[in-house]
Amino acid sequence: MTTIKDIAERCSVSVSTVSRVLNDHPDVSSTVRERVLKVIDEVHYVPNSSARDLVKSQSDDIGLVVRGMGNFFFAEMIPTIETAIAKAGYTLLTHQINSEDDELRAGAELVRSKKLKGLILLGGCFDYGKEQIAVLDVPFVCCSFGNSFGKLKETQYSSVTIDDQLEARRAVEYLIAHGHRKIAILLDSTCDSSISELRYLGYCQALKVAGIPLDEELVQETGNFSMEASYDGMKQLLNRRDDFTAVFVIADTMAMAAMRALYEGGKRVPDDCSVIAIDGISMSAYFVPTLTTLVQPKREMGEESVRILIDMIEKRSKNRHVILPTEVRSGESVRRMK
Amino acid sequence: MTTIKDIAERCSVSVSTVSRVLNDHPDVSSTVRERVLKVIDEVHYVPNSSARDLVKSQSDDIGLVVRGMGNFFFAEMIPTIETAIAKAGYTLLTHQINSEDDELRAGAELVRSKKLKGLILLGGCFDYGKEQIAVLDVPFVCCSFGNSFGKLKETQYSSVTIDDQLEARRAVEYLIAHGHRKIAILLDSTCDSSISELRYLGYCQALKVAGIPLDEELVQETGNFSMEASYDGMKQLLNRRDDFTAVFVIADTMAMAAMRALYEGGKRVPDDCSVIAIDGISMSAYFVPTLTTLVQPKREMGEESVRILIDMIEKRSKNRHVILPTEVRSGESVRRMK
Repeated sequence: MTTIKDIAERCSVSVSTVSRVLNDHPDVSSTVRERVLKVIDEVHYVPNSSARDLVKSQSDDIGLVVRGMGNFFFAEMIPTIETAIAKAGYTLLTHQINSEDDELRAGAELVRSKKLKGLILLGGCFDYGKEQIAVLDVPFVCCSFGNSFGKLKETQYSSVTIDDQLEARRAVEYLIAHGHRKIAILLDSTCDSSISELRYLGYCQALKVAGIPLDEELVQETGNFSMEASYDGMKQLLNRRDDFTAVFVIADTMAMAAMRALYEGGKRVPDDCSVIAIDGISMSAYFVPTLTTLVQPKREMGEESVRILIDMIEKRSKNRHVILPTEVRSGESVRRMK
Repeated sequence: MTTIKDIAERCSVSVSTVSRVLNDHPDVSSTVRERVLKVIDEVHYVPNSSARDLVKSQSDDIGLVVRGMGNFFFAEMIPTIETAIAKAGYTLLTHQINSEDDELRAGAELVRSKKLKGLILLGGCFDYGKEQIAVLDVPFVCCSFGNSFGKLKETQYSSVTIDDQLEARRAVEYLIAHGHRKIAILLDSTCDSSISELRYLGYCQALKVAGIPLDEELVQETGNFSMEASYDGMKQLLNRRDDFTAVFVIADTMAMAAMRALYEGGKRVPDDCSVIAIDGISMSAYFVPTLTTLVQPKREMGEESVRILIDMIEKRSKNRHVILPTEVRSGESVRRMK
């Protein structure tokens, strides 16, 4: 096997120069850098860090626990997180779990077995207690969720989120501003201590402020966040009522499935029913009609999560919380009432 | 920190009984199992395997290098692979890279630094040579791609794929059987030594067998596999020609973006232009119109890749190759010509 010494000999430079090139240090001339990189390429050299890993009590690894397999919104965030982690000089281990699984336990196992330096949780429960997070003995950041239904102090965890309740309120107010008053909502559950419950509260608030009484028959629960359940939920809603002129669906993927159910039920979007959502996944911009949605700042959320985590790992700062705004992407799925 | 011994004492059972419960062995009574699990839950115990990892020269980890970030088709396969790996008693480390990155180098680095037992490459080049794969000194499986443009012997690598050329031919023959003769193709490139080139060959073959001359103006390259490039490519094709009645798009996500461009160009699908693709991602079944596509057996591909890899790791068998068939999902995007 080729070693770093072989590379140095072939390039007629010192081992430490090769090492500097490998670690991308600035104090190497571009001529030397190119010569070294060329040889590395020729001999298919791969840096060997296992020996170093063996004697270290911790690795340079950061774990990412992704809760909700096949979640397109998360899938679009992972590359940003991976790039930011690499830029900071760490490597990322990704672990996907089902949305019913316990992300804290999964994270804790990963931390112990891989000697991780820190953890990013992409998706999780909003109701952690002190005992629950005690299993984590490294810095961690909750990305895309906070502790709205739990009892943690702000100093006990970090988070990067949008203000789910406020943004949901904005989405519904967007419909009201377009003249809608009979507004349905399609959501996982009104009381699941999750993003769904928060967005439901925003829906109720928008109606209340506008003086529109809550009509419980227009609240359709789906039981989970899948496209399938959303499609079925919209069919149920259509069987029960057909007098609503707009629907707020709490997530883009759910909205796309709901639009299919509306189409099959003979309701044209937006002519017969307007649709608005929150998330802003890339695919919803190609739907016919394109989806009007409040776009979460995916890139900033990923980068900010990494920044907070690295700052904690490198002892530059303590737990902190960042709330970022969404941006309305006006599509073709909402019409103005006359 | 709670140890396995503490758990055993609290449950009044032996340490080996707790261990059997943790490892899900069958020879523990259900009463004991439940008692142990209850205590484990109460004390928030997390198995500590780091000491074991330290003295082992290899971990129980398998790496998954995913090439093509935000690839929805791959995103839908990862959960299956993760589950199958866990069932076999291993853990999975996932690493995502850009579609321009070198998956062999990324895989080799992961193997060395994490002492991996084996590797699954989800997406990669079809033209490896012997020197290139020499960087990998553990068993590996190419999932969703083979070595069509390379010179490897069958004994030098493993693969699980569909027959890309044959399936593309079937897709185009499906259009021909529905009376289409002016059939365009939207693809990354006709000569990229990848899936795109293979599917292009299948397109040419179908036309040839049907006696339809190849019309190069109906071949639209996009330069990559993104939705954006596909949308732009379809717009270019529409600017050049509007006499085609059908288009074969080489991937579902690309087809969805192309359908949007057709819509904006005033071409209704399927009335003015039929569309067929290959992949079968879940979302394309909710599009209006639903996409007619050849569905890749994602679950079987993932499970088969894991099976082959584990068999090699546990020395039960050598490199092998599995080719699986797709299944036509008839949607609303293809119409029969009169």
